[in-house]
Amino acid sequence: MPNENNRNFVENITNMEADFAQWYTDVVRKADLADYSAVGGFIVFRPYGYAIWELIQKQMDERFKATGHQNVYMPLLISESLLQKEKDHVEGFAPEVAWITRGGSEELTERLCVRPTSETLFCAHYADLIHSYRDLPVLYNQWCSVVRWEKTTRPFLRTREFLWQEGHTAHATAEEAAEETLKMLNVYAEFCENVLAIPVIKGRKTDKEKFAGAEATYTVESLMHDGKALQSGTSHNFGDGFARAFGIQYTDKNNELKYVHQTSWGFSTRMIGGLIMVHGDNSGLCLPPKAAPVQVIIVPIAAHKAGVLDKADSLLETLSAKFRVKMDMSDKSPGWKFSEHEMKGVPLRLELGPKDIENNQCVLVRRDTGGKAAVSLDTLENEIESLLKDIQANLLDKARLRLESRIFAANSVDEMTDILNATPGFIKAMWCGDEECENAIKEANGATARCIPFEQEHVSDACVCCGKPAQSLVYWGRAY
Amino acid sequence: MPNENNRNFVENITNMEADFAQWYTDVVRKADLADYSAVGGFIVFRPYGYAIWELIQKQMDERFKATGHQNVYMPLLISESLLQKEKDHVEGFAPEVAWITRGGSEELTERLCVRPTSETLFCAHYADLIHSYRDLPVLYNQWCSVVRWEKTTRPFLRTREFLWQEGHTAHATAEEAAEETLKMLNVYAEFCENVLAIPVIKGRKTDKEKFAGAEATYTVESLMHDGKALQSGTSHNFGDGFARAFGIQYTDKNNELKYVHQTSWGFSTRMIGGLIMVHGDNSGLCLPPKAAPVQVIIVPIAAHKAGVLDKADSLLETLSAKFRVKMDMSDKSPGWKFSEHEMKGVPLRLELGPKDIENNQCVLVRRDTGGKAAVSLDTLENEIESLLKDIQANLLDKARLRLESRIFAANSVDEMTDILNATPGFIKAMWCGDEECENAIKEANGATARCIPFEQEHVSDACVCCGKPAQSLVYWGRAY
Repeated sequence: MPNENNRNFVENITNMEADFAQWYTDVVRKADLADYSAVGGFIVFRPYGYAIWELIQKQMDERFKATGHQNVYMPLLISESLLQKEKDHVEGFAPEVAWITRGGSEELTERLCVRPTSETLFCAHYADLIHSYRDLPVLYNQWCSVVRWEKTTRPFLRTREFLWQEGHTAHATAEEAAEETLKMLNVYAEFCENVLAIPVIKGRKTDKEKFAGAEATYTVESLMHDGKALQSGTSHNFGDGFARAFGIQYTDKNNELKYVHQTSWGFSTRMIGGLIMVHGDNSGLCLPPKAAPVQVIIVPIAAHKAGVLDKADSLLETLSAKFRVKMDMSDKSPGWKFSEHEMKGVPLRLELGPKDIENNQCVLVRRDTGGKAAVSLDTLENEIESLLKDIQANLLDKARLRLESRIFAANSVDEMTDILNATPGFIKAMWCGDEECENAIKEANGATARCIPFEQEHVSDACVCCGKPAQSLVYWGRAY
Repeated sequence: MPNENNRNFVENITNMEADFAQWYTDVVRKADLADYSAVGGFIVFRPYGYAIWELIQKQMDERFKATGHQNVYMPLLISESLLQKEKDHVEGFAPEVAWITRGGSEELTERLCVRPTSETLFCAHYADLIHSYRDLPVLYNQWCSVVRWEKTTRPFLRTREFLWQEGHTAHATAEEAAEETLKMLNVYAEFCENVLAIPVIKGRKTDKEKFAGAEATYTVESLMHDGKALQSGTSHNFGDGFARAFGIQYTDKNNELKYVHQTSWGFSTRMIGGLIMVHGDNSGLCLPPKAAPVQVIIVPIAAHKAGVLDKADSLLETLSAKFRVKMDMSDKSPGWKFSEHEMKGVPLRLELGPKDIENNQCVLVRRDTGGKAAVSLDTLENEIESLLKDIQANLLDKARLRLESRIFAANSVDEMTDILNATPGFIKAMWCGDEECENAIKEANGATARCIPFEQEHVSDACVCCGKPAQSLVYWGRAY
């Protein structure tokens, strides 16, 4: 029977070397991660894409709770006057918010915007909540969606709405706020490496690139397959700027009135885009086991033959106690199924046919290496466990090697440009600290200061752009 | 040392018999469930209130997944033309949506509303997604927040934004859609009874009360302490109405083009209000253990005495493996702590002092009955497990007895009114099926048709209002 769905997925996606942007879009669509929606600039998170986000949420939420944070939920909307309370913040966000002017049948006397981020709402709440040093620290987090009116959009990477978490904390002292900011940056770095298998570079943003209203913004930056950088999580130290604007004060142990010191930090669904662009290949998505909705896909071979389905069913049941397992029971050909689950990046494929059953074995195929091995059913669980661990580690190793091979030093803007055009990646170059040089570099080759890395090196004495004395090493790159 | 927080919570809340509405608000605030926000009509879900919602989410999500549903995420915003595609639907919701007219620096050419519910978005997606009978059924669910521009608001019960889940499914046949609608209503009923300890009455809504665009709406209705009803979850059968409006068609096995049949069903944070008003008392909240963020609160007595904190710490550690346990280490008096955790509805209090330690025991105090017993530390885990089960069952029994004692039959509108004024509750009365009688009854005493219960009885031959031949028994009541 001809089957309209019986196409070969692999032939249908663009080669990543030929057109990386199109390859990306193809993977998003064909791996069933997301779809365009009826509303311009907004996407539909399909079950498979949303399941990745649920895995990220669960594992990140555990880390937040382990570090003493509690979840809350603030309003979706912010009044214009509230948004305007902190001067730098409103300047940064007002140009990209969506404005509500009418509620039901009434014209609003004051416009409301859909939250682009929730600092102002948390601050208004803190002003009510915090009175004494006994009330501190306040360690809150929120899972929600935010809206920013982007002009050009791409699924996961840049959309008018995205899902994220935003942590917001208030502390008695500047030191505690500084410590929290770095602690949560380290949570992001550890999470990226250990769960998403994505190595990151940790550092501070330049003033030009920092969050609107922050004293300092820290970032974890990762490198995509095409050599472009992806800002993967940011953590902001606000000092007492917001506290002064919102009047968030407490009485300390000596009965003196003090301003709190605050932080915020966020991590979003754009990292699903990161997963695609770090681990994917020309067969599609390739998921690290810890972020894979399906870790093992069982494909019965010659399923019509006696005993195959029974045995596959019993494997499904046994393995489900320990792993995220599914069985593909559709009437498509095994070859089609192999392609489909490769496209979806399932870490391990388990093939089971009559011959295998005779030999008390099955065949395991790794998505990351293509490696194939017959495995005894007696040791299957241990074998899968160890293979999943190995895949997780291998993906991180591969990504780290690629990252390391794509970090170059440069001593002039021309050299930066040449490198970025030939072998895109991170460029290590010295910087004088002047925003004009950042602008000139961006003008010349499109690179921005990704971060001032914590691990500083001395590449030269002079700013790569103006030649004046350098202040610090910066990682530059073209970015998403 | 005088402690500014050392007030007695219990004295501070209004007596529920004196002013039920004020009692409700007091509990919401003093149990730290929610706070008013800086944005009118919107609330802040505080950590304790949000933790209840997380428990509801987790246990309900398990039920959705066990019945084959997958989570997705649709856009927050709906264009005006999309909202208008189904005539009844737009008539029902347009009057209460918030309209966005400006995105960033651009005036929008078409207004967008914040989703009041997402039928139109799911339908637009289904029209792209569904082509063949092989694509059916589609069983989706979404966790999100929605906005409805209510004029008068009350925390949890009626706010301009609330959190909920909305299930949306598409089926090949009318029978399958009908089956799904009732299956999910039963999930809600089972959840209310087994998790929230809230007994419900299941039935169908009258046409006047049904969802905008639905062929039939089913509901689970519960009864609050003040005798008012709370619609606790609804499940809608859309037939093929939305499918025709949005062109959602599939080719069946005979290659014929057919419309799908759809359902939707929702359950929201208003049930946190239900928990308060069903189980609460003049000491505050009283949570069923399955919905309690803290199931056991440990209060060390004479904590400065040698050994008390060590022993309490070790109990905390042991018990945490099995229950949600916290220890109150604040410097407040034991009496204050007792009141506070009663206010917060913690099911069990564990008191441990030097005398107890000598006797290898502790004292357990039940929130629901006030029952107090010394328990050997050797059997503590089993004892707590059995007490929590007992509290869960007792709360349901008590609520069921109250519900049953508050169902009255009436044969005239005057009789309904008298009962509702004297002993508010559900009124069983016959109905002719005419909307005019619903309007007349509401006019007379404020009661609405809560549902046409599945368990029909024959109370009389005549409509309670017009006296014409009755079609069915209806449960009437004043409602939130």
